[in-house]
Amino acid sequence: MKIQVAIDRVDLARATVLASQLDGLVDRIELGTSLIKDYGLFALADIKAQLNHATLVMDIKTIDEGVYEFKQGYAAQADVLTVMGTADLATIQAVYDVAQEADKEIFIDLLNTNKEQIKQLLPFTNATFGLHHSHDNARQFEAADAVKAFHQEFPTIRHIAVAGGVTLEQVKKLTADGIAEVAIVGGKIVGQPNPVAAAKTFQEVTKK
Amino acid sequence: MKIQVAIDRVDLARATVLASQLDGLVDRIELGTSLIKDYGLFALADIKAQLNHATLVMDIKTIDEGVYEFKQGYAAQADVLTVMGTADLATIQAVYDVAQEADKEIFIDLLNTNKEQIKQLLPFTNATFGLHHSHDNARQFEAADAVKAFHQEFPTIRHIAVAGGVTLEQVKKLTADGIAEVAIVGGKIVGQPNPVAAAKTFQEVTKK
Repeated sequence: MKIQVAIDRVDLARATVLASQLDGLVDRIELGTSLIKDYGLFALADIKAQLNHATLVMDIKTIDEGVYEFKQGYAAQADVLTVMGTADLATIQAVYDVAQEADKEIFIDLLNTNKEQIKQLLPFTNATFGLHHSHDNARQFEAADAVKAFHQEFPTIRHIAVAGGVTLEQVKKLTADGIAEVAIVGGKIVGQPNPVAAAKTFQEVTKK
Repeated sequence: MKIQVAIDRVDLARATVLASQLDGLVDRIELGTSLIKDYGLFALADIKAQLNHATLVMDIKTIDEGVYEFKQGYAAQADVLTVMGTADLATIQAVYDVAQEADKEIFIDLLNTNKEQIKQLLPFTNATFGLHHSHDNARQFEAADAVKAFHQEFPTIRHIAVAGGVTLEQVKKLTADGIAEVAIVGGKIVGQPNPVAAAKTFQEVTKK
């Protein structure tokens, strides 16, 4: 399983330093929605050149104007872009097509989707489906249990990621279960006094 | 009824010129999602100082991390910020509270929401509810008919806006019906050879 570190709510200089420091330690580096909305894709486009190893995810959270946003995002050197599962199906189809043509990854964020909506997304077999517990929702969320339940309900979905409440303990469980491909960790790495050490600890657990 | 001009998919210099030119001609100027994602809120923060009349809307389309995004958006001098109706209810409550405390306007974008979701939003009585036909969806959309049907279904909603397919003909109908407070027009003003003339034509129709 891969660790994706989400960098969010820091200034651009700090984001750039963090991305460089974490490159090679974790598989995927995410520039979070806050960075995109605060600084814009044009300002983030230089970060990719500093990465030698990591896959670069830009959490653009597209919900409309899909073709425009995905073209802009890939032009800003993203390897992976996100679209909301609650978007109009026409938007998701449009960005899926852009991703396939560009030979890039598309990540469908399932935040606040229901089962009926997810069923409509099943044909997008090459997408990564991201289980996502809202930052703003205080309800308890067990990442590993959620992934298992999701896999049971939608066994044909091949690429699963999970975000929200992903602790070290949860990463151990997720690794043991072997269902999720990507676990997304934010503050538990970048919010620590030593993000490099925290990243190594998380990455280490996925090897066991 | 007020006209809101959406400025989208142009470069920052052009957006700034358009905002200045249209200030005073239309009631509300919207910096669209594409401008926020391309350039970021920090870069857009200077535009408000150039406006002497218009209400400034930033179409931030918040879907998570509500408090952070709304604080950033109002700090960037937005008078109005948007949140997706498909967001977690906790997110919508959080941004509603930020807006109320800041004494600013909140706009709930109903793109791809269903009736059950809208019912849950009824307590947010001070919000503007935006009927929104996806850019990426080719289905026919009659703005005035949609507003009338929506008002019949949700008679307690006080502030209604509509976006998508808002032609001059539709603005005439919307004005005559007197239900919608705001009609959002994009390319039919800013995509014209003479946006100032187009804006005047649209604004004129709302006076009749």
